[in-house]
Amino acid sequence: MHLKGFNHTGIQEILDAAGVPKGSFYNYFKNKEDFGLQVIDYFVGYFSFFTEGITSERSLSPLEKIRRILDQFASFFESKDYAYGCPVGNLSQEMGDLSPAFREKLKEALDAMAGIYAQLLKEAQARGEIPESIDPTEAAYFIVSSWHGALIRMKVEKSSEPLKSHLKFIFDYVLKRR
Amino acid sequence: MHLKGFNHTGIQEILDAAGVPKGSFYNYFKNKEDFGLQVIDYFVGYFSFFTEGITSERSLSPLEKIRRILDQFASFFESKDYAYGCPVGNLSQEMGDLSPAFREKLKEALDAMAGIYAQLLKEAQARGEIPESIDPTEAAYFIVSSWHGALIRMKVEKSSEPLKSHLKFIFDYVLKRR
Repeated sequence: MHLKGFNHTGIQEILDAAGVPKGSFYNYFKNKEDFGLQVIDYFVGYFSFFTEGITSERSLSPLEKIRRILDQFASFFESKDYAYGCPVGNLSQEMGDLSPAFREKLKEALDAMAGIYAQLLKEAQARGEIPESIDPTEAAYFIVSSWHGALIRMKVEKSSEPLKSHLKFIFDYVLKRR
Repeated sequence: MHLKGFNHTGIQEILDAAGVPKGSFYNYFKNKEDFGLQVIDYFVGYFSFFTEGITSERSLSPLEKIRRILDQFASFFESKDYAYGCPVGNLSQEMGDLSPAFREKLKEALDAMAGIYAQLLKEAQARGEIPESIDPTEAAYFIVSSWHGALIRMKVEKSSEPLKSHLKFIFDYVLKRR
């Protein structure tokens, strides 16, 4: 589903990949849409857990934490031959217009992800790492969105260049003190 | 296909929407993939034609032309209840990992779109509208990519806010003279 998208992945493929019988699937999920929605929750849980490992590191400044999060995702994509992209970005693109239930869930997911960056940007602002003039919440959404756009280009370029360029524009332009 | 994606749209739906019989389809297209690739060419042709109407306007500065292009696309999405997104961004996300033929064609499409912005940014730089320090080509790709990311969030938010915020960060931060 991460690679092929939601609509292009059949329940049978999911069952085969997980090695569980059909009956078990319907014990846990009402239908395929319900499964998709729970995948989003699962990923947001993973994202929170993953980022918490970094945000709790006392040796890093708030801005360094943001960079570390993005660097580690970039390493993941490098190890996967620049495939997959972000489940939340992918599903927003694919399902945002097709299912109100997905749209609502994905909006929450984007809010949660941006919320983590917004908190770090507020801390960075309090420490004078980024300009006073920046709105931490708006900048957090821009980091998430422009990252999703960079991941789209990464899939086509099959290189780390789009992600590196994203980091450069975010850190050297948008968040730069001047 | 623009709304539902490539894999989720059947040839029969395309035939029904176009009002042509199956035989005609196979007169023009080898198969569904060939059709998809020609859709990308068609859109890039449209994008070039559309932007040429703006880039040829003598009353606008190069930077104003970029803003006009993005503003007009934003008006289009507003009229479509913030659905659809960019065909090239959508297909890159959906097909970049699934088909080498799509990947190659989409890479060309992204290059063509970024090329138009790069040319305008070079002109803007020559006129002192943007800083000397910016690489026009890299900034052009960032405009395209971060726009694709903003379109993803637009689909979920169903508002113009992601696109407006994109313009703000591009023009007030990335391209700002200081």
